[in-house]
Amino acid sequence: MHMENTSLQKVVARYIEAFEKEDLGIIEDIYAFDASVEDPVGSDPHHGLAAIKAFYKKAFEMGVKLQLEGQPRCAGNSVAFCFHVLMPGIKISPIDVFELNDAGKIQRMRAYWGPENMG
Amino acid sequence: MHMENTSLQKVVARYIEAFEKEDLGIIEDIYAFDASVEDPVGSDPHHGLAAIKAFYKKAFEMGVKLQLEGQPRCAGNSVAFCFHVLMPGIKISPIDVFELNDAGKIQRMRAYWGPENMG
Repeated sequence: MHMENTSLQKVVARYIEAFEKEDLGIIEDIYAFDASVEDPVGSDPHHGLAAIKAFYKKAFEMGVKLQLEGQPRCAGNSVAFCFHVLMPGIKISPIDVFELNDAGKIQRMRAYWGPENMG
Repeated sequence: MHMENTSLQKVVARYIEAFEKEDLGIIEDIYAFDASVEDPVGSDPHHGLAAIKAFYKKAFEMGVKLQLEGQPRCAGNSVAFCFHVLMPGIKISPIDVFELNDAGKIQRMRAYWGPENMG
């Protein structure tokens, strides 16, 4: 399935916006109800919207903001993008990959980062 | 399964080196015999080492070189990285993701890029 690249880019923009506004309503809107979030890859994924919202609620409460780096890479039903995770005194630079379902919701999120990508 | 991040980074370095030296021997060494390469994501994957070598042979013949951008992001058995594909007059900036098997060989390669990431 191929999505319009503009739709994929819009989901990334709304994801950044959710952190900017600390808005769980956006998280609820962009994720499928049965989505999974694996952050970082290799850790136990969060399954389902309730667990996913709890995960982002914690990040919002910690004051995490995201800064996109470069253009998102859209391909098929997926988008990969580089960004910085910013907290006071902390900077992490992951690559996230979103896989979208036919309804345009994020079905699977995987975050690639390790100790080398901090600071 | 978690791999040492140094092993994951080394595979990325050897991948870049394969293009630099136009060396299919390196491709043969870093990929599993039953690996798949999906480039770009959404297109029909190349399955198995013979098809994969044919794919890279074409790229080497076209004089494609790769330039890593930033630090690879290692997580679990996977590594994601930004780079530039350089050909005379052409520049593409994908994000690739390698999933490694227990033997440390690339089992699955996915390349994320679209028209917005060219030029």
